[in-house]
Amino acid sequence: MTFDFATRLRPNLPPGAARWGGFPPFNFIGGHNDAENLPAEALRAAADRVLAREGTTLATYQLESGPMGYRPLRHFISEKLARRAGMTVDPEDILVTTGSLQGLDLVNGAFLEPGDTVIVEEATYGGTLTRLQRLGVNHVGVPVDQDGIIMDALADMLNEMAGRGVKPKFIYTVPTVQNPTGGVMTEARRRTLLERAGQNDLMIFEDDCYADLLWEGQRPPAIHALDTDGRVIYCGSFSKSIAPALRVGYLIAPWEAMSRMLPLKTDAGSGALEQMVLAEYAPDAFHSHVETLCVALKAKADATVAALEEQFGTTAEFDPPRGGIFLWVTFPEAVDTTRLAEIAGAEGVAINPGAEWVADPATGRNKMRICFANPSPEVLREGIAKLADICHREFGVPERSANVAR
Amino acid sequence: MTFDFATRLRPNLPPGAARWGGFPPFNFIGGHNDAENLPAEALRAAADRVLAREGTTLATYQLESGPMGYRPLRHFISEKLARRAGMTVDPEDILVTTGSLQGLDLVNGAFLEPGDTVIVEEATYGGTLTRLQRLGVNHVGVPVDQDGIIMDALADMLNEMAGRGVKPKFIYTVPTVQNPTGGVMTEARRRTLLERAGQNDLMIFEDDCYADLLWEGQRPPAIHALDTDGRVIYCGSFSKSIAPALRVGYLIAPWEAMSRMLPLKTDAGSGALEQMVLAEYAPDAFHSHVETLCVALKAKADATVAALEEQFGTTAEFDPPRGGIFLWVTFPEAVDTTRLAEIAGAEGVAINPGAEWVADPATGRNKMRICFANPSPEVLREGIAKLADICHREFGVPERSANVAR
Repeated sequence: MTFDFATRLRPNLPPGAARWGGFPPFNFIGGHNDAENLPAEALRAAADRVLAREGTTLATYQLESGPMGYRPLRHFISEKLARRAGMTVDPEDILVTTGSLQGLDLVNGAFLEPGDTVIVEEATYGGTLTRLQRLGVNHVGVPVDQDGIIMDALADMLNEMAGRGVKPKFIYTVPTVQNPTGGVMTEARRRTLLERAGQNDLMIFEDDCYADLLWEGQRPPAIHALDTDGRVIYCGSFSKSIAPALRVGYLIAPWEAMSRMLPLKTDAGSGALEQMVLAEYAPDAFHSHVETLCVALKAKADATVAALEEQFGTTAEFDPPRGGIFLWVTFPEAVDTTRLAEIAGAEGVAINPGAEWVADPATGRNKMRICFANPSPEVLREGIAKLADICHREFGVPERSANVAR
Repeated sequence: MTFDFATRLRPNLPPGAARWGGFPPFNFIGGHNDAENLPAEALRAAADRVLAREGTTLATYQLESGPMGYRPLRHFISEKLARRAGMTVDPEDILVTTGSLQGLDLVNGAFLEPGDTVIVEEATYGGTLTRLQRLGVNHVGVPVDQDGIIMDALADMLNEMAGRGVKPKFIYTVPTVQNPTGGVMTEARRRTLLERAGQNDLMIFEDDCYADLLWEGQRPPAIHALDTDGRVIYCGSFSKSIAPALRVGYLIAPWEAMSRMLPLKTDAGSGALEQMVLAEYAPDAFHSHVETLCVALKAKADATVAALEEQFGTTAEFDPPRGGIFLWVTFPEAVDTTRLAEIAGAEGVAINPGAEWVADPATGRNKMRICFANPSPEVLREGIAKLADICHREFGVPERSANVAR
């Protein structure tokens, strides 16, 4: 007899996972980073120093820093945000999280209940959309361009909602190196966003997890930095700037909000070794590392742009990203990227279909996200050529003259 | 104007957190471990080796091992469980979790909904009780002694529940170094438990997170090892055996169950550096480390027992633990440990009041849990003397002749 777990499951669970089969040869999803620019040696030296000096503090949960996280790391985060994002934050108001994803979970857990409404950018991080769906929360997408949320559209949306008696719980935005568009909300729009939020008594959740990877133009102050009302909750991450497999992010909120989120963090502290090593590594090395990394990422973005142009010509439309690790591509209407992702995935080319990265799946039908940070330029070129072959075969896009072999 | 977060909170949140004020001087709570036996140097050497060899794999989420966790660590866990717990587990069926607490969350998330009932040991881990309460799940406590769940009581309880048409979702048990009693369920009772579960078509959730710290008697095979029906989900941890601040645990279940829990693990992988360092450290050092640690913990348990006997005499009743890091103490009825914990806490002596560690708070009113692993024997003695003074002052227990100054 074998026990039947299926009869005991909670209803409405997500579909079951499949066994993991390894990374595909052309892996253009997942937010991985450039292995050549992973500062492994410097992290190794940092681990060596910090474990020699205070390794035995691992004997207590949360080291000797309490539930907000390793104190030297919170100090570094405070300094980094002052220098790079114009923010003034007391280290005592910074919560170290197990990746910025835990920050999303804490904010959602404290503020959202089924039936609530959240405003998101119309193209946005898929993991946020999945989280909101699982919580039974409605999301409404506001139009964006490469300069961020379109403020007139937001005003119209807020008026329309007010007319229906709907008060959104918050506006979730990724203003700096937007996921997936790679755009950056201008300072003027950030100020307008704060005004609109003020007029409508709304909270803002600013997800700045890619912000350190900007390589084009000046980084505007964080929305948090421009906020005079204390209505912004802010999260960030070291996953994108140092190493995705290190699970270290941070969440910043006024204590009134933080004190209600903190009891939902029932994990007995975020991983201490990762916090210690980062805190030891970062003060000397973070800023110069990020500078080098951005150069490498820009080169990969350029290689991706060149490969897309070579393979797809004008049938792949996109704005070159201003930073980050991904590119948001629009194909002609004929192309259904959900099907393309399925077919290409079976042939070793993994892409994010647009429908999973937009508030209204219909608007993402012919779009895709390409993550370019991890593959080499050669793999990028080869994979995009393969994707173009498959796309041509299945959807007739890009067009090709019949007698030209590729 | 300051934005008012309080008006946006979800209803029924736990009370707000207070700012952390540092560890109390006599810290007898929290599951911390012995700093002198923290293998900091060996972890440092392991970090050095593994980062030199494969540090750049941190550039991909989940390294190159997929969502179940770092493969070499899963291999070690499989070998360790075979050697120490008599279990046969394929590394492909082991999920590395961010502490065993994440294992609890995944099991609860996949199987429990509000109104469900779970059977727990009548004295059990407070964090499990809090989790069940927050989920709106009923828990019913079955009596235990130092040999584990009392099987006749379980049979009666199951009959009584069946009569009411209640089918518990699972039985949650900490069979090896039970928290908080320090007892060990005998092999005979483990077999009976499996029989009863079979007769009643029940799933068992075995939490073995203290099991490596047994110092007295033979460790019985895990319930999982004796199970022929595949009805046991098993979790464990390195927090207790290596370092609490490292957040590395593991969850084991048949793929039918695991495949439904895995999609609830939306953290983009558990911390990779901690997994890598542990996997590098453990094969050579784990078993001998645990042996040394147990000797040290037994000495601290002995010091605690001696201090309790000296200070409280017969008014503190307890069974000397067979392993682990805590002692479960019963005082005379006059002592209300919730009040004692509050008063002693204000004077720098932190204890776990029994009411938070039992299924029915009334039964824990005069009980307390003492964690002895972290304080030095001197601090243990001094803190317990202070606790006895406070307890005498507030409750007249222990009795003291009026003219003897302590």
